[in-house]
Amino acid sequence: MGNSTEEDLCSQTTNRDDGDILTILVATDIHLGFEEKDPIRDQDTYDTFEEILKIASAEEVDFILLGGDLFHHSRPSPYCIFKCTELLRRYCLGDKPVEIEFLSDPSRNFHNVYNPTVNYEDPNLNVSIPVFSIHGNHDDPTGQKQISAMDLMSTSGLINYFGRWNNFDKVEVEPILLKKGATKLALYGLSHIKDERLGRLFLDKKVKMMAPEDQDDWFHLLVWHQNRATRGVKNFIPDDSLPDFLDLVIWGHEHDCRIEPERKHNDVYVSQPGSSVATSLAAGEAIPKKVGILKVHHKQFQMIPVDLKTVRPFIFEELVLKNLDDMMNDDNSGLTPNELTLEVVTKKVESMMEEAKQLGRVGKASEKPLIRLNVKCRDERQVFNAIRFGQQYNGRVANPDDMVKCQPIKEPVRRGKGDGKDKITFNDGPVLADRVEDIISKYFAENDTLKGLSIGPLNEGVKRFIDSNNADAVSDVAEFMIKETIEYLATRLPEIEEAENMILACKTVRDEQENLNTIRQVLDKPQKKRSVTNDDVSQRKSSKDDDDGMTIDDDDDDDSNASASPVKGKGLWGDTSNSSKPTRGPGSRGGRGSRGPRRARGKGRAN
Amino acid sequence: MGNSTEEDLCSQTTNRDDGDILTILVATDIHLGFEEKDPIRDQDTYDTFEEILKIASAEEVDFILLGGDLFHHSRPSPYCIFKCTELLRRYCLGDKPVEIEFLSDPSRNFHNVYNPTVNYEDPNLNVSIPVFSIHGNHDDPTGQKQISAMDLMSTSGLINYFGRWNNFDKVEVEPILLKKGATKLALYGLSHIKDERLGRLFLDKKVKMMAPEDQDDWFHLLVWHQNRATRGVKNFIPDDSLPDFLDLVIWGHEHDCRIEPERKHNDVYVSQPGSSVATSLAAGEAIPKKVGILKVHHKQFQMIPVDLKTVRPFIFEELVLKNLDDMMNDDNSGLTPNELTLEVVTKKVESMMEEAKQLGRVGKASEKPLIRLNVKCRDERQVFNAIRFGQQYNGRVANPDDMVKCQPIKEPVRRGKGDGKDKITFNDGPVLADRVEDIISKYFAENDTLKGLSIGPLNEGVKRFIDSNNADAVSDVAEFMIKETIEYLATRLPEIEEAENMILACKTVRDEQENLNTIRQVLDKPQKKRSVTNDDVSQRKSSKDDDDGMTIDDDDDDDSNASASPVKGKGLWGDTSNSSKPTRGPGSRGGRGSRGPRRARGKGRAN
Repeated sequence: MGNSTEEDLCSQTTNRDDGDILTILVATDIHLGFEEKDPIRDQDTYDTFEEILKIASAEEVDFILLGGDLFHHSRPSPYCIFKCTELLRRYCLGDKPVEIEFLSDPSRNFHNVYNPTVNYEDPNLNVSIPVFSIHGNHDDPTGQKQISAMDLMSTSGLINYFGRWNNFDKVEVEPILLKKGATKLALYGLSHIKDERLGRLFLDKKVKMMAPEDQDDWFHLLVWHQNRATRGVKNFIPDDSLPDFLDLVIWGHEHDCRIEPERKHNDVYVSQPGSSVATSLAAGEAIPKKVGILKVHHKQFQMIPVDLKTVRPFIFEELVLKNLDDMMNDDNSGLTPNELTLEVVTKKVESMMEEAKQLGRVGKASEKPLIRLNVKCRDERQVFNAIRFGQQYNGRVANPDDMVKCQPIKEPVRRGKGDGKDKITFNDGPVLADRVEDIISKYFAENDTLKGLSIGPLNEGVKRFIDSNNADAVSDVAEFMIKETIEYLATRLPEIEEAENMILACKTVRDEQENLNTIRQVLDKPQKKRSVTNDDVSQRKSSKDDDDGMTIDDDDDDDSNASASPVKGKGLWGDTSNSSKPTRGPGSRGGRGSRGPRRARGKGRAN
Repeated sequence: MGNSTEEDLCSQTTNRDDGDILTILVATDIHLGFEEKDPIRDQDTYDTFEEILKIASAEEVDFILLGGDLFHHSRPSPYCIFKCTELLRRYCLGDKPVEIEFLSDPSRNFHNVYNPTVNYEDPNLNVSIPVFSIHGNHDDPTGQKQISAMDLMSTSGLINYFGRWNNFDKVEVEPILLKKGATKLALYGLSHIKDERLGRLFLDKKVKMMAPEDQDDWFHLLVWHQNRATRGVKNFIPDDSLPDFLDLVIWGHEHDCRIEPERKHNDVYVSQPGSSVATSLAAGEAIPKKVGILKVHHKQFQMIPVDLKTVRPFIFEELVLKNLDDMMNDDNSGLTPNELTLEVVTKKVESMMEEAKQLGRVGKASEKPLIRLNVKCRDERQVFNAIRFGQQYNGRVANPDDMVKCQPIKEPVRRGKGDGKDKITFNDGPVLADRVEDIISKYFAENDTLKGLSIGPLNEGVKRFIDSNNADAVSDVAEFMIKETIEYLATRLPEIEEAENMILACKTVRDEQENLNTIRQVLDKPQKKRSVTNDDVSQRKSSKDDDDGMTIDDDDDDDSNASASPVKGKGLWGDTSNSSKPTRGPGSRGGRGSRGPRRARGKGRAN
């Protein structure tokens, strides 16, 4: 096993029969339909998906492997389904013969299809490039009969949707077994599972990858879609959870491109391709987007990153303003503090615009970059109206409304007294933003206001509200718990003075069970009431969601640009040390993972 | 030209090469997804669609022709798309060769597809039964980029979607030209257009069917999806609008099965297959549901109706109670009037249940029929709680909640004085229910409250609210007219005392233009605000929509069981006489057309 350098495998390749080399295009988090109502960005995800398919076609790959979140919405718009279908038909059907043998039992790999067969063996379809995909947290099964957008592509025969898992008491992943010439690939897929749940399953040793018997003859490739960066203590899967026998893991869900395989202590390599579209204006999303051409020869592999050219340029920077006095001293033009600030900011933005041009992107998206400048002010006279500032860039950038963020620096900390001047540093370093659940848990822990309701189920409701735009989720959960409590009382019929204690007892029982499955069933039930539309949520957010407040993301992400502080030994499943994530300074690109969608804020937004 | 009897063409067939006979399965208004959230009826539409596809397969038809409303919702649920795709793939792909030649230019027949070709000529798909379909009013293009559910099936290559028309200044239908052996078929398709608009285009002679030059050598078959029964004065297309050269019209949209071709005065035949599912509890929906096997040989054709066996049995009856005194006199058991009434009603319902069994339907739907009994009471002591009555049939019928309707007969009219007794007849005969537009127009005509706004645009807004669940439509239209009026005033700057007159003048100008296109553009614009979900509308309806009030249907239908009084000579386009619709008495089956969806009323309904 091992990651060959490009020279290695390529030079081997030229000297040897290609017939033994499996070539796979690897991509993830394409998020079709993200911002499809935005008049500027509406085609971004489709254009990049087309670029990816063109690369696959040009490279004559044996198949395409997607790591989840092909769709941004679990219930994509008709246009989104239409475009995806059209693109897959255009690029993945045709006369090029498929040279890989399918050796496993397709009925154990593919579920929820009337005809569980790999699409290139369907005699009624002429497939040239098979696509294999798991689902992510965005395109997971939902609603009536739990149909996901991936099921739609699967039922039309355009995607081989695998890795769907319905039994959450244990996970046993049976790989797809593929063979090309002498190379044998065991492809393990695990569609998105809540990290907390999967983490617990790992801890309980209930996650199994069912390797074939002649294990050493196979190249073991896992694709999954989980948090890798820490998002709350329980909510990430550390790299070293991975079974040792795996050769390579394609890690979906994380949007930062870290596609070059990283070798873990147990010799498992992890490649994190990252998203092909920036769904939030965070530092990690500004890392250039790539897909990979993965070549596998026996137990050797090589990942060749390919730059995506159609991705809308995105420049992320942080500008920490000088002390106002210093600024004024440096300037002789007689400008007011505010004018001076605007001059500095404008200069910075213009240089970012220039930088965006240098990225050499092509296509329509290249004309109007995404720009995000976080300006840290030290004095209130430096604060300016960021929205009005952005409006000047209407027509030049894709996101004038949230292009600049003006953030006062709080709590200056004085340190040291060297050389006659006070050195001032600011509390503007990395901050690990809380997850919504953590905030809620903390809130209720500090404010002892919940007598009969439990936090776990409420959090589940909040998650459902966020993930599925189900505005009734929280009240449904609350109603359910109230009903449960009443039933509890009804069977026990306490005296009136005992009632309160009994309500608390009911809560304790519930808390101890920690059984969220019932709650999930409540939430999965067909909704009696209205479910909100995206527009709804967007509106609600813009009213709730101001810059000083809590940010609610679709994807339980934060978009802070704080860099990563690997959390050691804190995982639910024991020792989680050896996280090899690079730490980066504030303001640089490549900070902590920022996946998932962030709906743009602000009221002026066309949507 | 002519409709051969079954004997004719079949006997000819046996003696002659089948190679000249085009065999087409004809069906319409399948309404996939109707009541898919109902725990009892959820699979009805899918089961019947599957039955239809099985018939097509067993009959080895050359193709399937659908007359619109394959989907009940313009934005079908993921499950609905999934099921439809699965069924089409299962039954319409395969090795059976397609024997029809496609002679017209597919790029002029098929729109909005990346690869405008008939699906059986796509080298990447192995089509055994091509499906040709127009869209109806339910599955018309909607939302972003105007994508319809039909587009989804078209882009996946499973349906040849034709007859889409975007230019509403004129309609020029270019037929699909098909040839099998010596038989040449010109297939004209016109997807649903608002009847009022299409009627006006007919009046203005702006509807053209572009027959091929050697017109006499072709069999001319039109499929469209329009009101045929009168629904408000302007809102139906009379049979005799049809160009004389047409041989046969497949008339979609009307749900009553009148599939046997009816010969019109201009020698055009009309076959109205009717829906394959009852979407309202109206008399016309109780006519047995059929599809047709259409055989075409040169200019001869023959329509062989085929009973659908999986359709849920539906018995519709009307029970006019006897005068209470007569009822009491007939009975010696000492029952109260109410008890006696319930006994009569129960007896009737039980006989209907028995009748439902006799229909000999098969499959899951056959177990619980749809029953609708309208009970006409002559005395308030005969009135009973219909909901409670229905609850007794829980588990035995599919629709206990709206199984019985209890309607007092109003306004008895005394006539004649023969033989010593008053003869009493009741005003319970056919009543032509108003359309919503008519009600609104009438309301504002009677209440002179509209100073600046026009009724036409408001009605357009109401229609959009109904058809597209766009809750903002009416206010958007009103806002637009207010803005228009202000602009009108702003360019003229009247004195204050002249302002009111000028507002009226603006309204007059608008009314005279009768140009609803601008309004439609306003309504087509991406919505700034939230759009309501189906559930929303359903909720709003249930509060608005009681039995005594105005009924708002999705489909601008009424569901009255009044029989048709053909309106003569009243159409916008001149003389519309000769409507040959049979008039039927109240209570009989086969009353006036009842198409389109009706959301079930009542609060107790599982949905």
